[in-house]
Amino acid sequence: MSVICPVTSSNRSYSSDGMSSFVAIPPDYYMETTEIPLTRHECLEQHSKIGALTATLLLKLNDTVIVEVKNNLLTENTAIHWHGIRQIGTPWFDGTEGVTQCPVLPGDTFVYKFVVDRPGTYLYHAHYGMQREAGLYGSIRVALPDGQSEPFAYDYDRSIILNDWYHKSTYEQAAGLSSTDFQWVGEPQSLLIQGKGRLNCSTANSPLKADVCNNTNPECSLYSMTVVPGKTYRLRISSLTALSALSFQIEGHNMTVVEADGHYVEPFVVKNLFIYSGETYSVLVKTDKDPSRNYWATTNVVSRNSTTPPGLAIFNYYPNHPRRSPPTLSPPGPLWNDVDSRFNQSLAIKARKGHIHSPPATSDRVIVLLNTQNEVNGTRRWSVNDVSFNLPHTPYLIALKENLLHTFSQTPPPEGYDFANYNISIDQEDNNGTTSDAIYRLQFDSTVDIILQNANSMVAEVSETHPWHLHGHDFWVLGYGRGKFDRINDPKKYNLVDPIMKNTVPVHPYGWTALRFKADNPGVWAFHCHIESHFLMGMRVTFEEGIERVGKLPSSIMGCGETKHFREP
Amino acid sequence: MSVICPVTSSNRSYSSDGMSSFVAIPPDYYMETTEIPLTRHECLEQHSKIGALTATLLLKLNDTVIVEVKNNLLTENTAIHWHGIRQIGTPWFDGTEGVTQCPVLPGDTFVYKFVVDRPGTYLYHAHYGMQREAGLYGSIRVALPDGQSEPFAYDYDRSIILNDWYHKSTYEQAAGLSSTDFQWVGEPQSLLIQGKGRLNCSTANSPLKADVCNNTNPECSLYSMTVVPGKTYRLRISSLTALSALSFQIEGHNMTVVEADGHYVEPFVVKNLFIYSGETYSVLVKTDKDPSRNYWATTNVVSRNSTTPPGLAIFNYYPNHPRRSPPTLSPPGPLWNDVDSRFNQSLAIKARKGHIHSPPATSDRVIVLLNTQNEVNGTRRWSVNDVSFNLPHTPYLIALKENLLHTFSQTPPPEGYDFANYNISIDQEDNNGTTSDAIYRLQFDSTVDIILQNANSMVAEVSETHPWHLHGHDFWVLGYGRGKFDRINDPKKYNLVDPIMKNTVPVHPYGWTALRFKADNPGVWAFHCHIESHFLMGMRVTFEEGIERVGKLPSSIMGCGETKHFREP
Repeated sequence: MSVICPVTSSNRSYSSDGMSSFVAIPPDYYMETTEIPLTRHECLEQHSKIGALTATLLLKLNDTVIVEVKNNLLTENTAIHWHGIRQIGTPWFDGTEGVTQCPVLPGDTFVYKFVVDRPGTYLYHAHYGMQREAGLYGSIRVALPDGQSEPFAYDYDRSIILNDWYHKSTYEQAAGLSSTDFQWVGEPQSLLIQGKGRLNCSTANSPLKADVCNNTNPECSLYSMTVVPGKTYRLRISSLTALSALSFQIEGHNMTVVEADGHYVEPFVVKNLFIYSGETYSVLVKTDKDPSRNYWATTNVVSRNSTTPPGLAIFNYYPNHPRRSPPTLSPPGPLWNDVDSRFNQSLAIKARKGHIHSPPATSDRVIVLLNTQNEVNGTRRWSVNDVSFNLPHTPYLIALKENLLHTFSQTPPPEGYDFANYNISIDQEDNNGTTSDAIYRLQFDSTVDIILQNANSMVAEVSETHPWHLHGHDFWVLGYGRGKFDRINDPKKYNLVDPIMKNTVPVHPYGWTALRFKADNPGVWAFHCHIESHFLMGMRVTFEEGIERVGKLPSSIMGCGETKHFREP
Repeated sequence: MSVICPVTSSNRSYSSDGMSSFVAIPPDYYMETTEIPLTRHECLEQHSKIGALTATLLLKLNDTVIVEVKNNLLTENTAIHWHGIRQIGTPWFDGTEGVTQCPVLPGDTFVYKFVVDRPGTYLYHAHYGMQREAGLYGSIRVALPDGQSEPFAYDYDRSIILNDWYHKSTYEQAAGLSSTDFQWVGEPQSLLIQGKGRLNCSTANSPLKADVCNNTNPECSLYSMTVVPGKTYRLRISSLTALSALSFQIEGHNMTVVEADGHYVEPFVVKNLFIYSGETYSVLVKTDKDPSRNYWATTNVVSRNSTTPPGLAIFNYYPNHPRRSPPTLSPPGPLWNDVDSRFNQSLAIKARKGHIHSPPATSDRVIVLLNTQNEVNGTRRWSVNDVSFNLPHTPYLIALKENLLHTFSQTPPPEGYDFANYNISIDQEDNNGTTSDAIYRLQFDSTVDIILQNANSMVAEVSETHPWHLHGHDFWVLGYGRGKFDRINDPKKYNLVDPIMKNTVPVHPYGWTALRFKADNPGVWAFHCHIESHFLMGMRVTFEEGIERVGKLPSSIMGCGETKHFREP
């Protein structure tokens, strides 16, 4: 997998294959670019484990980005999603296999071309099977044009991707999740900060142990971020966890949240930043502590009573040695079951004054998505409204544009559940669900409200946190609540004054989250739980809007299902 | 991966998805059919490890076989090769990805249709990346029509596939073999007899250990073949090892070899059957020993000084309990470096009297393939004549038939090496090699001799055993020798009287093997070392013959490289 990215408006170019093409990038950007190919490095030294981040894409506002993705995998296809980029006018380059394109075959090169029309922090990752979790991901940073400045000041800019890591391959995981002899993936073995983590070698995979479980392997050190004392750092923190909701903290340092999913946040201060898979945040950190030592940066699992040990990194005050351990024990993070603190952070995130996009006052349609776990034909599945999603064989965008409506069910999926009788607080006696590949068709330019309603899973007294990610749009986050959403009274409490816009949002245990968006981006868009295993188990829906306004599809997205013969030479 | 196989001439049908469709198969066939899906079961109990055999295909001579291969893998493509079936008139259904077809995408169904025109023992397996080694394989048995009989008598007929097994996934192996930071796969951790083996759990992968390293798991028992005392069994023994050359033996029992690769052998008796990856043998075994006990069946690695422990199975005399251990220690196999015995077995295999196909007395062309290991652009490769094979992006069969000659090199590969000066007995000072995707184009209906010349590898005093497998043909095995092939004198010693015909043949350490075949099967055919890692590292060539006689290609084999737009609706 090589990513070659000539950026037309500035003539910079970089590649994950070699260092040489990074010349145009300032040294402080360069040092955080990790140059590891797709195949994951199993670095099982006692204090480290390396994931496979690829290059950070450094772009400027209104750049037209051309990414040539060459699939060098031996037997696997791929597709790359540009997470947070709305793809206005280019819905075919959203990179969602089965929705917007056919997979890219081994040996093939696929060219993505799109405009980045907002500054901020975004991500890219594989959107095919469980390839994201296998390590195919990276950061996108869209800067303001020269001469313009952000509404906050900082000296340096750094990106950190948080992740979790399993020893078992994603192939084994996917097989276990899909088979009738269902096998849950369990808790990840490690948490990674910018691709590095630690592992107790006494529990390590023995064939690998001899190779990599040693303390002298330089690849196996903790991630260390070198900072200059007395400065302000913008840290762009994002999460691409397969499963875990996380808290992130830097020992002794406060963090001021200023950006979320590419939108400016009215600043607020946290000691622990809660972050869910698919979210990005910018925080400002002042390096104003005792400069004679290093500090711990840590991340730990919240929302699940996890066995996964915290992830560690070193916040390195120059000129202390980057690998010098802080003199303190790494501080514990918040309690996993402190739901209040997480609710409160969600409520604290408002649009920054002077940067508020006002939402429409009312909506044209309300779709309630009850998050349910079901048994479907003897298989454990995740669902909405007891319907678990099945991907059809022909991508929706092509099927709809080329009138291949027989390739998926035309029976619309449910707009809600049995509001009167369903008790969200208990595991249901009847957990039976169905599957469907039907989609929600939205009137173009209409305003749509989505109520994500959480519930008890199939396990007694368990309700999980699901981070939902919408493609092709930002949505306004109108409110969060606990218990069952009240369709009469809760909308009266919506924040229509300064709601944040985001592309990924959590629905908290036994709670609800209310979203609003304008269906004004012609295309077909996935909306799904960003937890890789939940997504694979069917926790996703699809929206169509303005298909008649979509331009001529490039033939490069075709070649699968009923679109094989649509390819042009 | 489901295999659905309606056999037109007899209306039997079977499926690896369910037992119900096996009704037409006699009980003694049925019991050895293993019903395990593609994904490999990691059964790491101390005495067992289960591979992923799929159903045995039981066919009759001149059956037209229709196999619908549905690719249920999540992100991986596939292609299935029918090993030993010559595909006369159907070269597009040979199932060799990149040579005869494009890969089959996830969700797609590919229909193979071919005639089995010889009785005997064959195999099917994935021919894409390292998927065969990942467990996608099974047996094919072609019986004579009712009323006809084999030239030897037996009471029961059983198939046994031997294999080796790695803990690391084939994805990791392939990445290590292909990267500039070359990582050799090493010796396999287990040997499997009919998909089962054993593993020392103290060295097992720890996350799996808790799940499967227990003695009570019924899936983790050794393979046990129940036999009735006082009968003659035909055992169809085949090897699909990734790396290992094997010896197979049944404690206290002689085996009479009667078939090899679908051809009748002039019977000879062995205690140890040497078998190389891609070979099939039938042996007759009399159950005439003390019936009050069970016996060990064992397999062990030869030709490499391997750390892999012998594979064990139980030869179960009815009515002893199938899992009752024999009262003896499992007998040791032959010494790994006893090359003489293996040479002698190769020499002993002649065509059975009354079933001799006489070879042409002379050949039109002699191609010498020196088996070399090379360094190519800093990467370790296997080669012939210092040229390591690279697969182009468009399958040859389609490229040649549709005149896309620009898709691969038109410079013919070398017909030999520097016979005068190359010392095959030492590792070369200059190991540099090149890569090429060029092919050998053979005159239709000509007689071609292939001399496989072994040599020292890049490691001092090491020459490996390479089993070469030819697609689309059987070849006559004219001779084996030691040292450098003498082009003047060695052909005079060729066996033109009763040479066996085979499709897979070993070239022994520092030795040579001489083959002859008629280029009379229009198509494009792979010829390669059947060791999965050697194949991946470039130890393969390609032959074309009579491309102008190949009929209209089915569009189902297209859809990759430059053939994307050739697909028909």
